[in-house]
Amino acid sequence: MEEILGGIVAPKGFLAGAVQCGLKKEGYDLGVVFSQGLAQGTGLFTTNEIVAAPVKLCRKTIEKGPLRALVVNSGNANACTGEQGDRDARSMAEAAARALGISPQEVLVASTGIIGEYMPMEKVVPGIMKASQELGREVTHSHAFAHAIMTTDTFPKEIAVEIKIRERVVTLGGVAKGAGMIAPRLATMLCFITTDAPISKKALDACLQKSADQSFNCISVDGHMSTNDTVILLANGEVGGPPLTHKELPAFQEALDHVTRFLAKAIVRDGEGATKFVRIEVSGARKAEAARHVASAIANSPLVKTAINGEDPNWGRIVSAAGAAGIPLDEKRLKLYIGHVLVFEGGTASSFPMEELLKEMKKEEIDIRLHLGLGTQRAEFWTCDLSQEYVTVNARYHT
Amino acid sequence: MEEILGGIVAPKGFLAGAVQCGLKKEGYDLGVVFSQGLAQGTGLFTTNEIVAAPVKLCRKTIEKGPLRALVVNSGNANACTGEQGDRDARSMAEAAARALGISPQEVLVASTGIIGEYMPMEKVVPGIMKASQELGREVTHSHAFAHAIMTTDTFPKEIAVEIKIRERVVTLGGVAKGAGMIAPRLATMLCFITTDAPISKKALDACLQKSADQSFNCISVDGHMSTNDTVILLANGEVGGPPLTHKELPAFQEALDHVTRFLAKAIVRDGEGATKFVRIEVSGARKAEAARHVASAIANSPLVKTAINGEDPNWGRIVSAAGAAGIPLDEKRLKLYIGHVLVFEGGTASSFPMEELLKEMKKEEIDIRLHLGLGTQRAEFWTCDLSQEYVTVNARYHT
Repeated sequence: MEEILGGIVAPKGFLAGAVQCGLKKEGYDLGVVFSQGLAQGTGLFTTNEIVAAPVKLCRKTIEKGPLRALVVNSGNANACTGEQGDRDARSMAEAAARALGISPQEVLVASTGIIGEYMPMEKVVPGIMKASQELGREVTHSHAFAHAIMTTDTFPKEIAVEIKIRERVVTLGGVAKGAGMIAPRLATMLCFITTDAPISKKALDACLQKSADQSFNCISVDGHMSTNDTVILLANGEVGGPPLTHKELPAFQEALDHVTRFLAKAIVRDGEGATKFVRIEVSGARKAEAARHVASAIANSPLVKTAINGEDPNWGRIVSAAGAAGIPLDEKRLKLYIGHVLVFEGGTASSFPMEELLKEMKKEEIDIRLHLGLGTQRAEFWTCDLSQEYVTVNARYHT
Repeated sequence: MEEILGGIVAPKGFLAGAVQCGLKKEGYDLGVVFSQGLAQGTGLFTTNEIVAAPVKLCRKTIEKGPLRALVVNSGNANACTGEQGDRDARSMAEAAARALGISPQEVLVASTGIIGEYMPMEKVVPGIMKASQELGREVTHSHAFAHAIMTTDTFPKEIAVEIKIRERVVTLGGVAKGAGMIAPRLATMLCFITTDAPISKKALDACLQKSADQSFNCISVDGHMSTNDTVILLANGEVGGPPLTHKELPAFQEALDHVTRFLAKAIVRDGEGATKFVRIEVSGARKAEAARHVASAIANSPLVKTAINGEDPNWGRIVSAAGAAGIPLDEKRLKLYIGHVLVFEGGTASSFPMEELLKEMKKEEIDIRLHLGLGTQRAEFWTCDLSQEYVTVNARYHT
């Protein structure tokens, strides 16, 4: 497997384009991805009870059959917009279908941005027309699309990989946006992945779910699940030949995992106001689900996150966050490491040199490992610190 | 019922004292409450799996029988301190018993502060001796005690009320400390309440549980449950006469509820970095527990809390936080009010004058009411905003 340039248009037969149509104050805010041939599609969506109009539409469209295009905007989430919102999402699919000469049933729609405002269709429809005319397969086309889906993100998130599966060279490309409202329950944020691999719908579904469980479902920026979370994987089979066999699928899975883990980590690194990347590993649990709960409780504790921001070796907050996860623990069996420093063991602080711990806290990547001593199951979580900048960004997002 | 001065020493037969023994950089950090006669005691404690040594000791002591004293320190939580911590907590009870001429079995111990450091007993034991010599019943004694339990609190929290129950005038007094690590699962933070009412142990238990459910279990500052949360209620019966009857208990309950609600609200008002008091009411739920879940999800959303901090009318965050609570909702039945302004109804923004909403957001007390339209149950939650100051306070707490 090799990382290559090209992002979402690296796989054969995929084109992308983006425009600025006035939804955000500056920069690209609307993008289109187009597959020259029919593509299988699979998706994972928010489990929030309040679901944005484009997510409702996507869920239906993706069940119906092969796809040709994606249209995505930032600056407006089209959520909490009632039936008008549903009509607007459908109109976006129709506009893209018209511009691309395909059926609206073949178009997926995604939106991100402010909740509760109607989509300004007088800007969006011309934007879709224009983006559809600017499609291309250059590196710049993926860049432009990656920019078009950004909200409070500070950098675009894209990746492409090539992998040889027996005689065939398969390519995967992906872009994502994150920053705020990132919490782990099914998919979180927007992510679009393309591949030219020939692959059955069933295998595609299974591969994405498996991959998301080890990437997008392991991240938290602020524990707030959005109304618009969407992960889409399109496979157009342009590489040719029969669908990947049972024996060939693990190689594809590996490449997909590389893409999703890269993008999930990029989302955390670009968490609103983030200055540190924090990896939390909880091991020695009786069940993987219990390990997940504990890791998530640590990852979502504002007290843990502010301590990390301040490079403060206040490890008691990690232990107390773990204890509040609702999972039975035995204090005396716990072992807590920060980096390579064992800080807590046998129910009490271990004797470690404080300067070693302070050195760990100063790193840009903080590694927290908690061993529960109860079983053999583990879970990993990625999060970031909580900074003053997070508050600044979010206190003034709307106005 | 009437509010009076005197805080925790307002009820007959209770004395308090406090000293500075060097656990905090400045101010009182150790306090003692003493009852001249035997008192019934009841307590509620953290449900964290990681429990501080004094909490373990308190749970046992309170089961054993009547009590005479409380000793409390701030600056060190005596949590994650293993068997040494257990010994230290017992030594604190023994030191107080010696100084007061009572049995260690009659002394409750509570601690708050940094986790994971051993209690500096060479400071604590002389501190207990000195505090025990400075007991008194003046307003200043309650003030000093209230100060002695503060950590990042910016003001002491105390109250006393007098209530006439038939022929008898009963007094209740309380002090609390809060600020950080405030989350609702059983009791949260430290709170000590005294009363001179004659009351059975069984009635006392029931009254405190009921009162906590409507006060301390409805608050959240940062969703982080501590290892030391303790609420203690002592009743020494000094008013005289037989225990309160079934008919007399509601008046006592009312007075107790007044005390606990006052202290719970004071904790939220003094939440770390808080600039706003936020009341969240969720009504129209099928079950009270569901209403609680939704209210808690809103109260604990960093995105809701930062928006309130910025006086940003970003109500979509409230709706999406509610939707992520794990409770089935029907978007079209939701009604969301901020103050008196109806902002969301029938699945979409209602037409309200923005200047009215902006006026509500500028208030110091923000009132959020979400009607689910599914049933008749309700819940209330109190929280505060999330400010830059919260991050500053918590990024540098330890060092």
